[in-house]
Amino acid sequence: MNAGPPDFDEKFRKKLGELFRWRRDVRSFRSDPVPDALFTGLLDYAALAPSVGLSQPWRFIRVDDPARRAKVRASFEACNAAALAGQADARAQAYARLKLAGLDDAPCQIAVCAEQNPAQGHGLGRQTMPETTRYSAVMAIHTLWLAARAQGLGVGWVSILDPADVMAALDVDANWDFIGYFCIGYPKTESDAPELERLGWERRRAQKIEVLRR
Amino acid sequence: MNAGPPDFDEKFRKKLGELFRWRRDVRSFRSDPVPDALFTGLLDYAALAPSVGLSQPWRFIRVDDPARRAKVRASFEACNAAALAGQADARAQAYARLKLAGLDDAPCQIAVCAEQNPAQGHGLGRQTMPETTRYSAVMAIHTLWLAARAQGLGVGWVSILDPADVMAALDVDANWDFIGYFCIGYPKTESDAPELERLGWERRRAQKIEVLRR
Repeated sequence: MNAGPPDFDEKFRKKLGELFRWRRDVRSFRSDPVPDALFTGLLDYAALAPSVGLSQPWRFIRVDDPARRAKVRASFEACNAAALAGQADARAQAYARLKLAGLDDAPCQIAVCAEQNPAQGHGLGRQTMPETTRYSAVMAIHTLWLAARAQGLGVGWVSILDPADVMAALDVDANWDFIGYFCIGYPKTESDAPELERLGWERRRAQKIEVLRR
Repeated sequence: MNAGPPDFDEKFRKKLGELFRWRRDVRSFRSDPVPDALFTGLLDYAALAPSVGLSQPWRFIRVDDPARRAKVRASFEACNAAALAGQADARAQAYARLKLAGLDDAPCQIAVCAEQNPAQGHGLGRQTMPETTRYSAVMAIHTLWLAARAQGLGVGWVSILDPADVMAALDVDANWDFIGYFCIGYPKTESDAPELERLGWERRRAQKIEVLRR
């Protein structure tokens, strides 16, 4: 089992950089389904994410029922209308339409939650910062996201939602925190530029991160 | 610029899986410094992480000043003493000693924050879930963590801290949220098993994630 660490060479690092660069928040999906084995494989990777005290607090909910999907969509529409009311920019409308299309088209949709007080991990590391259970779930999502991209799949994070509405629509444990709702499928287009950049909404500014020195 | 997506083949995916498997929460560091170019390179990768509305709200603080490091260490000791008071398990003590050693030995230490209301991104996507700015910073950390591992570097997340103490010790903007404190350096040992597992504290249970169906 412990044959020594793998050799991560320059070639792998270059490709890893391309993976980071080509991971996208995808909004346009083809309708072909995500094979079950592929989806399960993504979860196997997600299970390797870091977690506070090794608590593995991430909880995955696969949403297939059309009635439940409709409720999630309704929450998006309500929240989005409220957001747009305060937004004069017409581009925001275009952006919203895209996200809605993602919700309509993505063959595979999941909600991800974090258990608030997981028994696993015995509470280690999270007493002063209980939010670290949620952060652990976020890293599991990010792991799944990268693994999906390496398989040619796209992932889109839908955050314009009311967590309480989604939790009710999905009828999940009240001791779980809602982290996000995700569309998964094969992307219609491929690009190394963020869609918000292509739409002229925002551009990446911090190509170089400025570090504060202390 | 847009020559089409890179070819992520089976060989790359296998290596990516090894990277996820060999990424560790490292607590034992060698004293040799992290070359500046390498550290800057890690930040370049982190800048490619997903962020809500393309807001890139992550803020990195490099902590080199011994007096400031001592204050962070003091916060760890205070929080840890409180945590151990409620913990009969002797293994918790062993665990705490290891984390403390990490803080003493790691040549490179950073704090990561998230700006609460970044102008970049124009507020898109975070009105109903403002925590997504913090989640964006968490994904930048995870990106850096994976990139570090691919360079042979180890990262350890220190969460047994009082955020207010750390923010005061580092004298950073009050509009930033403290996400975590990280030790970076070359690990003393390499393993594909989590240290908490090797110490007998906890073991990975969910090798297979159970998916709730809705």
